[in-house]
Amino acid sequence: MAKKVLRAGGAKRKAEGKLRLSEFARALLREWNKLHLPLDARAVIAVSGGADSLALLLGVNELIGAKKLKLKIFVAHLDHGLRKETSRADARWVASLGKQLGYVVISRRVNVAAQASKTGDNLEQVARRARYKFLAEVAQNRRAEILLTAHTMDDQAETILLNLLRGTGMDGLAGIDAVRPMEKGSKLLLARPLLSWARRKDTESYCRLRAFEFRVDEMNANEKFARVRVRRQLLPLMESFNPKITEGLARTAELLREDSEALTGAATRLIELANGSGEKKSGRKGSLSLSLDLLSQAQPALRRRALRQWIRECRGDLRRVERIHILAVESLLFGNRGGRTIELPGGSKISRKSGLLQFVPGPRSAHLLRTGSVKPA
Amino acid sequence: MAKKVLRAGGAKRKAEGKLRLSEFARALLREWNKLHLPLDARAVIAVSGGADSLALLLGVNELIGAKKLKLKIFVAHLDHGLRKETSRADARWVASLGKQLGYVVISRRVNVAAQASKTGDNLEQVARRARYKFLAEVAQNRRAEILLTAHTMDDQAETILLNLLRGTGMDGLAGIDAVRPMEKGSKLLLARPLLSWARRKDTESYCRLRAFEFRVDEMNANEKFARVRVRRQLLPLMESFNPKITEGLARTAELLREDSEALTGAATRLIELANGSGEKKSGRKGSLSLSLDLLSQAQPALRRRALRQWIRECRGDLRRVERIHILAVESLLFGNRGGRTIELPGGSKISRKSGLLQFVPGPRSAHLLRTGSVKPA
Repeated sequence: MAKKVLRAGGAKRKAEGKLRLSEFARALLREWNKLHLPLDARAVIAVSGGADSLALLLGVNELIGAKKLKLKIFVAHLDHGLRKETSRADARWVASLGKQLGYVVISRRVNVAAQASKTGDNLEQVARRARYKFLAEVAQNRRAEILLTAHTMDDQAETILLNLLRGTGMDGLAGIDAVRPMEKGSKLLLARPLLSWARRKDTESYCRLRAFEFRVDEMNANEKFARVRVRRQLLPLMESFNPKITEGLARTAELLREDSEALTGAATRLIELANGSGEKKSGRKGSLSLSLDLLSQAQPALRRRALRQWIRECRGDLRRVERIHILAVESLLFGNRGGRTIELPGGSKISRKSGLLQFVPGPRSAHLLRTGSVKPA
Repeated sequence: MAKKVLRAGGAKRKAEGKLRLSEFARALLREWNKLHLPLDARAVIAVSGGADSLALLLGVNELIGAKKLKLKIFVAHLDHGLRKETSRADARWVASLGKQLGYVVISRRVNVAAQASKTGDNLEQVARRARYKFLAEVAQNRRAEILLTAHTMDDQAETILLNLLRGTGMDGLAGIDAVRPMEKGSKLLLARPLLSWARRKDTESYCRLRAFEFRVDEMNANEKFARVRVRRQLLPLMESFNPKITEGLARTAELLREDSEALTGAATRLIELANGSGEKKSGRKGSLSLSLDLLSQAQPALRRRALRQWIRECRGDLRRVERIHILAVESLLFGNRGGRTIELPGGSKISRKSGLLQFVPGPRSAHLLRTGSVKPA
């Protein structure tokens, strides 16, 4: 009935591809333009089978049908091997969905639990890393320009609260990016076109509107996961203070993201200025040494942020580098003794020497650190 | 018994004023030094009669007794007139406490509820404004250099969460300042020397250790106040995720405060640079006009922050100025039409004219705005 009304409304607009778009698809298209995503591209869409990723796939499908987007779609599905029977069933379901819509489906099964118990890392972290590694590989193999994930505003609110509960600064409170390069300098864009407007209930009702069933992950009801407890206990309590708390948190994240970008920009300029005379090592970005003078005159928060950025550039990542290490490196700037050295986790060092801070790579490579079994403090 | 042990321990350290300090007083002294508060000064202490303010007064009293501080203390008590009998009893109690310790007590009663119903403002806001107005007057009359309030780390955590619940950016999440000038440019320091380390239970046990009873404000149990519900419902739930959540929130606030200072510094420099050719109006800080060029090249978050700061300087405050107004002013920078104007709440305006943004004061003065009955959107 509703469908007929829509068709009747669309009839005035002439022929095929001009049918009235659903509200969901229109919102998706607005966000697509706001994020300046390409209208004509090869795109990988991560599909778990839940309502969010199904709605994203169907929304993109609707926009392609209406000739608003011209995308070559690849559906990517990672089976984390966490729920023996159901996770295989999910994979089969995504495969048949792809067939029905006419899209290529790339699916892989990994044993996340085994990996986690080997490295001692947190299960959710291992799962996330495995997922993005898989998605990046699919995108590379298929020469895709964009990789889409179906994070919603609810995911954003949950992420911000989880970061707040764990203890975080501005970057944690800025939550999930709506769009960013997959890695620094990479051409592949990682985009979340539902993040800043879609609520979980919107994705569910759009799936129903399109008459597609979605899979329900029973882990979403398992309160041993902090994220599930945030969703089922903390957010409802916060809603009793402010019914629009999810939107409010997303708004806060947006403001902090802006501020964070402004500070990161200022820190990058500070590093560039302090980079001056240092030796360059080919293959790495930036310099392995920084002039003390400019750093010591900068504002503390800016200086610390610049030191973090510089260490990440020199070292490859910031895993296990805590604030205490940054403060120790900062103290080198103001120490009176001539030569002092701070050792970072994993063995790399930073020394103060003849007016410069110098980064000395450690004996263990970044790759070893990445799979090391020592957990951050 | 405990007292005897303490005395025995202290006996080795010679005579009077060298008695072993309590842990609370030592922590207070450490924070006093960390905040660079003066060791010899005239100080107003805000005392409600609750455990927090009593502990602050007793802690300072202990440090004076031990000759660690040399303060001339004035105890200030504002009776908000909210609880007829008990609030008068609190005032009497503070008066007798002052007498017992040998400090001057300055007390005043105001009718906060009547003021709130007249202006239509939120009761807690009106109470806070009345309190700080009173405290600033006492400080001025007594030529005090510092004004001390007894906010604890629990107050900090509650404030951050309340701001988060209402919707806020970086400044709201940075919470309460541990020390700042009472007003911009004022010599009077407003300091909270319990904020970054004392928990509410610490102040209560220190009062008991000193064998002083404290008053309990029954409004602290009234769940119609959002702050009380944050304390009694939200924080306990968050503690079930992270038992150190209060400390974590205080830590987050500290990080954001640093970042906020770095950004504010950068925004101030941007305003100074953009101030160049504008006409000066004597008696006001800064210029009533800004060059468009520099502003339009700056990073968005920095530019918006600079515009907020500039409007506050020109207008006296930012009451009822929302983000939507700042964005409207920002849009003036990029508009193509020659002369456009944005009206701010209260009637002042900002125009774009011959390459400048110009502030035009409104017909209603800042004072009228302050007592106006229109609530912010």
